[in-house]
Amino acid sequence: MPQGTTNNLSGSAYGRVKPFHDAEITEVGPGTPCGEFMRRYWHPIEMSERLGERPIKLRILSEDLILFRDRSGRPGLITPRCIHRGAPMAFAKVEARGIRCPYHGWLFDTEGNCLEQPCEGKDKPAFRARCRQPWYPVEERYGLVFAFMGPPNKKPLLPQWSPFENLTPDEKIVPDAASYSVGGDETEEIIPWNWLQDWENTMDPFHVVILHSAFSGPQFNPEMAVMPDVNWHDTKLGMQYTAHRKFPDGREMDRITHVMFPSLRSVPNIQLSGGIAESMGWLVPVDDNRHRTFHITRMPLDFEGVPLVTAPILDKKWSDMTADERWMMPGDWEIQKGQGPITCHSEESLGSSDTGVAMLRRKLRTQIRLVQDGDNPTGVEFEPSVLPFDIGAGNFYRKE
Amino acid sequence: MPQGTTNNLSGSAYGRVKPFHDAEITEVGPGTPCGEFMRRYWHPIEMSERLGERPIKLRILSEDLILFRDRSGRPGLITPRCIHRGAPMAFAKVEARGIRCPYHGWLFDTEGNCLEQPCEGKDKPAFRARCRQPWYPVEERYGLVFAFMGPPNKKPLLPQWSPFENLTPDEKIVPDAASYSVGGDETEEIIPWNWLQDWENTMDPFHVVILHSAFSGPQFNPEMAVMPDVNWHDTKLGMQYTAHRKFPDGREMDRITHVMFPSLRSVPNIQLSGGIAESMGWLVPVDDNRHRTFHITRMPLDFEGVPLVTAPILDKKWSDMTADERWMMPGDWEIQKGQGPITCHSEESLGSSDTGVAMLRRKLRTQIRLVQDGDNPTGVEFEPSVLPFDIGAGNFYRKE
Amino acid sequence: MPQGTTNNLSGSAYGRVKPFHDAEITEVGPGTPCGEFMRRYWHPIEMSERLGERPIKLRILSEDLILFRDRSGRPGLITPRCIHRGAPMAFAKVEARGIRCPYHGWLFDTEGNCLEQPCEGKDKPAFRARCRQPWYPVEERYGLVFAFMGPPNKKPLLPQWSPFENLTPDEKIVPDAASYSVGGDETEEIIPWNWLQDWENTMDPFHVVILHSAFSGPQFNPEMAVMPDVNWHDTKLGMQYTAHRKFPDGREMDRITHVMFPSLRSVPNIQLSGGIAESMGWLVPVDDNRHRTFHITRMPLDFEGVPLVTAPILDKKWSDMTADERWMMPGDWEIQKGQGPITCHSEESLGSSDTGVAMLRRKLRTQIRLVQDGDNPTGVEFEPSVLPFDIGAGNFYRKE
Repeated sequence: MPQGTTNNLSGSAYGRVKPFHDAEITEVGPGTPCGEFMRRYWHPIEMSERLGERPIKLRILSEDLILFRDRSGRPGLITPRCIHRGAPMAFAKVEARGIRCPYHGWLFDTEGNCLEQPCEGKDKPAFRARCRQPWYPVEERYGLVFAFMGPPNKKPLLPQWSPFENLTPDEKIVPDAASYSVGGDETEEIIPWNWLQDWENTMDPFHVVILHSAFSGPQFNPEMAVMPDVNWHDTKLGMQYTAHRKFPDGREMDRITHVMFPSLRSVPNIQLSGGIAESMGWLVPVDDNRHRTFHITRMPLDFEGVPLVTAPILDKKWSDMTADERWMMPGDWEIQKGQGPITCHSEESLGSSDTGVAMLRRKLRTQIRLVQDGDNPTGVEFEPSVLPFDIGAGNFYRKE
Repeated sequence: MPQGTTNNLSGSAYGRVKPFHDAEITEVGPGTPCGEFMRRYWHPIEMSERLGERPIKLRILSEDLILFRDRSGRPGLITPRCIHRGAPMAFAKVEARGIRCPYHGWLFDTEGNCLEQPCEGKDKPAFRARCRQPWYPVEERYGLVFAFMGPPNKKPLLPQWSPFENLTPDEKIVPDAASYSVGGDETEEIIPWNWLQDWENTMDPFHVVILHSAFSGPQFNPEMAVMPDVNWHDTKLGMQYTAHRKFPDGREMDRITHVMFPSLRSVPNIQLSGGIAESMGWLVPVDDNRHRTFHITRMPLDFEGVPLVTAPILDKKWSDMTADERWMMPGDWEIQKGQGPITCHSEESLGSSDTGVAMLRRKLRTQIRLVQDGDNPTGVEFEPSVLPFDIGAGNFYRKE
Repeated sequence: MPQGTTNNLSGSAYGRVKPFHDAEITEVGPGTPCGEFMRRYWHPIEMSERLGERPIKLRILSEDLILFRDRSGRPGLITPRCIHRGAPMAFAKVEARGIRCPYHGWLFDTEGNCLEQPCEGKDKPAFRARCRQPWYPVEERYGLVFAFMGPPNKKPLLPQWSPFENLTPDEKIVPDAASYSVGGDETEEIIPWNWLQDWENTMDPFHVVILHSAFSGPQFNPEMAVMPDVNWHDTKLGMQYTAHRKFPDGREMDRITHVMFPSLRSVPNIQLSGGIAESMGWLVPVDDNRHRTFHITRMPLDFEGVPLVTAPILDKKWSDMTADERWMMPGDWEIQKGQGPITCHSEESLGSSDTGVAMLRRKLRTQIRLVQDGDNPTGVEFEPSVLPFDIGAGNFYRKE
């Protein structure tokens, strides 16, 4: 019996290897290589102004936690189940000295010390000392609450960054937790895919020319449609790209974007105004399949609103777009979400335009292995003299 | 390079062991230690008055079942898929002699015997006898349907309890399936967490003083806010606590709550009226992560409504409360649900006020191991002369 | 101590073996026995008229795929993540030469060849040739798009079937993707249970007498309530049953239903009009727990609407029926869904009326093992001379 022919079926999807992701550089749970690397740094976990009467449930680096501020103003970050009998600290109430469990009234301070056990009769200091609620240190800066979730003997300084350390009296720093930077808006703060997809997209200046310009229309400044000459280079804190564009009117611009370990970035103004970038963002893994972003922006004192809002398309917000409109004009959200909860690195074809992505992954893997070998990774500092860090991102015009 | 310091980070949540639950005393599926212990007893599974034309889908002890009443009045409890071709008996219809499968019309009686196979041509008694629908015995008492899901040769008597066996002509027994006793209401009958969290809370008189009084305001009688002297003691059927309170007006009361194997309890009147408790409740595991409650209460013949409704808070029912209102005034539902689907016993710190909880778990484990060793557990009886059981819970005033 | 008695508890559900399904004849993923058998055939995957501007997401045989038609009219079927960086091809746009990824603009033709990589600078033919998007061949016939998802060297001819090859000028073929044939309607195209439950129901003429007649009232023609004499027999393409009925008015009818490998069927007109069946259907597994149906029907040229709509019950559509109405009058949807995502073959009791079901499973298993042994299964043809296939189903009156 004659058989089918193969000559027109090369490249068939039949029998291909099931795709998979690279766990080493993406997964963030306790004890994982990337998770332990991430736990050597301070991460922003909430905006300071949100800490009020009611404790806040958070999930950070695959750990469920409760964030609160006691009535003395101290922020605290503890595990979500009372160390006594597992009652939910999300239902606790804050007092001057700490937070009180609703079930049997145990009171804990912001470092998890048990201060009261009202049903135990007379005070039992030894038992009470053993009843310590697990906690993580937190500090506040730039309107954000930062947490350190790593080994106690590895707690570094909470860094400062130059653009936010020399404000004039007419300026302020505006923090934000919305998802504008990844194509969402203020309706979504939990971004449902792995953090690395978002971070490495930052080192890919070419998708701006296609996705945000040719394919979906000008989502940023129309001049972004010019194909740039790009080079990527190491920095002290991570890596940068410089994208050089020659505009039709003769101007030339170098756009420098900077990513810093473990998951920071400074992206210059997308309206292409010249000068040093005055905003910075953090990608904070919620767990392996989700992340959040926090941004700070230096703004005039009288500024109101959200600095990072991208231009609305179709006169409507992203969250109001229909499925058809998102198909017509996809943005970062649609693309990165479409890569899957964690993209399948086994099924990629990186080319020369992906040099930045490949370089970022390589550098990330190096840092992860440094931590595994017992060293401190880049950007983890214990000496105040090295702060603040310089960033140096921006849009720099050669001829203006 | 200098490193971070540990001196202010003791008790950190970093590196803690992943918490886990104690499976031996919580999980109830077929073949599990606690599941086999539970299967030595009769359990209420539905209110008798609900058995009508339409079969009822139930899940009990991790088994899916169909409960029905044939048109001759007999209740039956069978597996949910027809033994012929797996059709759903939830779509069956009841007849005088039993229940008929919709797919090919096989008729089964309440003991699973196949009575008709209309598509098989002339009757084939031998084949028909092999086609027996798996079933469990059921009996009705106190307005409830009870099932025995254990080994056929271990079926005990369905017990009776004294407070419900000597009614006057002016009294009746009111059965109920709502979740008032755990802080819910009639809108939720499936309680989404492990049965043991609910049961052991019954042996914890101290949470009444904090949760239901000081923390969330008086959810029961205001006098419950008085801190009691408590002792716990073994009983023939399980264990009791006696909570002794001295009220501001000089009265003194002993409040006795009784828990009985495998998952029964009699909690005295929460309005603190004196005398023997006249209600009793069962906790019935749906599966490892869910349970139901059934209660019976002795009431005047002309009583209408539900005996166990707790006082509404804020002039609204629990199911109408907002998330903020539940945070302001959490009750048993919020606390026990917040402990998780099964609480993590590995991450607890039991103190002297938890003596009852510890004792209940120890006694439960003993019963479970008795069954594993081939013995009959406490409260499983085969001799009518031992019935009815006495309970003896109540609010007893010393000076009144 | 006396024990319970067993004499009235035989057949108890206690201790029964956990039921399971027969994976060999039901599961369809890549590399599974039945999945590899299924992959030797062409399957319809969508109606041709639906291929427009926007790519269509499909799941077939447990594989996620993107179906599109380029602006030159060619249909294409590719994997859903761009082979470059995993971007979602569901957001791609079609052009004259193929389909373009939104992220970096790579353009692929319908056979997955990469035609453009706009961000890579000057063309790199060798790299571009390696960047082939995995694809499957598709062909169109009868208003349907067919795909071959098997080994390239095993691609057979896309078959033709006699009833659809000799249309008169006044006739047309009407394709449809709704779920009427399994008791649903046009609101559901994804049928949430394993394909085999639906297929083997076709070889069970007895459920028509009970489910569709005696139990739920006449869901088809009232004369279907007559109990038939049935015989089942092999055919060249699969198997048939002949159901012989003697109607009260003296007429006699042979109803012949034909199932063909891998998952085709031709069911005669349910209104019992005489003659050869002029419709045919395919069951297409979505994955192990879901399937779709596609039907074609030969109809007059001026026919409008859907040929397979069954008579509405209660003057309302299936999708408008309440849960109580579906319990009163269950149909194929309720029964087959109630068998579970995959029915438990270990807990069945097949009788003489199930001869067709048993025979179909046996024949299916034989075909699956043929493929495992390297042979071509029934109905896979490489020689045009054997086409079109005859079907021969229909309602044939002996005396009319």
